[in-house]
Amino acid sequence: MSVAAPDEPGIVLAVDIGGTLTKLAWAAADGTIGEVTRVSSPRSAEAVSVDGLAEVIAERAAGRDGVRGFGLVAPGIVDADAGLVRTAPNLGWLDVALRDRLERLTGLPGAVGHDVRTAGLAEWRLHQPNETDLLFVALGTGIAGAPVVDGRLLAAGGYAGEIGHWAVAEGSGRVCACGRMGCLETVASAAGIVREYVRLGGAAENAAEVADLARRGYRAALDTFARAAAALGEALGRYNTLLGPRLVVLGGGLSGAADLLIPPVTAVIRAGVTFEREPRIVRAGLGADAGVIGAGLLGWDRVGRPEEAGRG
Amino acid sequence: MSVAAPDEPGIVLAVDIGGTLTKLAWAAADGTIGEVTRVSSPRSAEAVSVDGLAEVIAERAAGRDGVRGFGLVAPGIVDADAGLVRTAPNLGWLDVALRDRLERLTGLPGAVGHDVRTAGLAEWRLHQPNETDLLFVALGTGIAGAPVVDGRLLAAGGYAGEIGHWAVAEGSGRVCACGRMGCLETVASAAGIVREYVRLGGAAENAAEVADLARRGYRAALDTFARAAAALGEALGRYNTLLGPRLVVLGGGLSGAADLLIPPVTAVIRAGVTFEREPRIVRAGLGADAGVIGAGLLGWDRVGRPEEAGRG
Repeated sequence: MSVAAPDEPGIVLAVDIGGTLTKLAWAAADGTIGEVTRVSSPRSAEAVSVDGLAEVIAERAAGRDGVRGFGLVAPGIVDADAGLVRTAPNLGWLDVALRDRLERLTGLPGAVGHDVRTAGLAEWRLHQPNETDLLFVALGTGIAGAPVVDGRLLAAGGYAGEIGHWAVAEGSGRVCACGRMGCLETVASAAGIVREYVRLGGAAENAAEVADLARRGYRAALDTFARAAAALGEALGRYNTLLGPRLVVLGGGLSGAADLLIPPVTAVIRAGVTFEREPRIVRAGLGADAGVIGAGLLGWDRVGRPEEAGRG
Repeated sequence: MSVAAPDEPGIVLAVDIGGTLTKLAWAAADGTIGEVTRVSSPRSAEAVSVDGLAEVIAERAAGRDGVRGFGLVAPGIVDADAGLVRTAPNLGWLDVALRDRLERLTGLPGAVGHDVRTAGLAEWRLHQPNETDLLFVALGTGIAGAPVVDGRLLAAGGYAGEIGHWAVAEGSGRVCACGRMGCLETVASAAGIVREYVRLGGAAENAAEVADLARRGYRAALDTFARAAAALGEALGRYNTLLGPRLVVLGGGLSGAADLLIPPVTAVIRAGVTFEREPRIVRAGLGADAGVIGAGLLGWDRVGRPEEAGRG
């Protein structure tokens, strides 16, 4: 690999690790990324292998000129400031000093962040840069949030934003992967939508199918989305009481069904507001690659953007 | 009034306005305050009078040398950065540019803040200065919180912290002053404790009396506190899932009953934790004057502390 020449901005490798697949893309300083490629997450025994991950990064970097560093996001409890992954059940990790280990193994400077909070960072910086109080909610297999308050993305040592694990009325009786009952994500995540639809006697491979059936007026699919919207409205109304966002951005895979969710969710929140302000709810501007785009931003935050270097 | 001489630190007038009484005290730059005096809040017709308040401040300032400015806290939705009170039903205010009006009327520089968030600021700065993630909860006539995340007190334009208006299971069927049903403060505030005790057939003037009866083993009083603790545990557990505080500080008048609340509230949170960390719950170090002490800190933040002036 060769480092960036003084007169070129160079490039950052953006990485989004999952339990099964890892996404990679080259990221420019302005947030644009190249083609996203998917590789199997390198595993050893029960866990994703940090050594294997370092090899993937180093190999990519060796094949290109001007590589400045990397930005990487992971699921779980991730302390971005410290570069630590505290727990990531899907990756089999517990207290991994990920940033330092990858920097040492690859010889590149890098940053580590949480997948959903970093996707929210990308959405906020690239699409809502003037909003100081917003919540990005990723509706995927699970549900998590990226809270922005007073113009700052909250971290709380990696613990901030787990709105998917708030108990809601519509979740009553449903067991959550976290071990509790009735969490929002049991009924309002993409996986929850499929489970609820099956519970009503339907059959669908994924939430997009259920959404299509709902748009065509099928009762069980409509009921499934009504339940998800009621649950999401309850949780977002509660968030609104505590942190008063002006904007809620729905992201993640299920945001493809935002047309089915935004009107009823807005109605639930509106019906509950007394002293609070009412947030606007919109669909995310970035698609499924928000995490890898955010990883690129983190990498550039770490190595310094060209214009910043010029000013420094 | 005379301004501070260059060689003296001077003093700030700290003011805590309520619908009925206003507290005043002289505040030094280190957060210490003199004797707290109470005056009737100056009213005209339906509202607390801003002109009257300015007169109170100007009169006090005229009687003392070295007055640098004022710091003032109010209940309601208060945007401290903008110096605005958006709504304060207890004061009869709607969209009052309080800081600018008081500065103009008194000729003194000043700061305006929210009573509970500012009490939380005082508690944090003076008693827990090294904690980056904490929640201060004021258990008074109502309940409100001051969330500190990543070493910053959250404001959200004045809307942050209204945890007292989260619906909880134990509040079921109780109408809240905010217009909704089942809010935390209907059963776990000082006023809620008295109402619940009366509902169970008891008679008490205030929550301290109910607490005394609970300590002496009376059933209805114990049941009242058990309900309050269950409600508080539910709300704090939920806050913990979203914002992961390491410390929860119980303040306000009902913190005198912290001995009755901390063990059961801790047990409720502990029973619910899965991926979260478990916060420590402590009683506030500052007493009933936390609001006026915080008002003094705000005033000094505004005029600049002597050591800062020396460094500047």
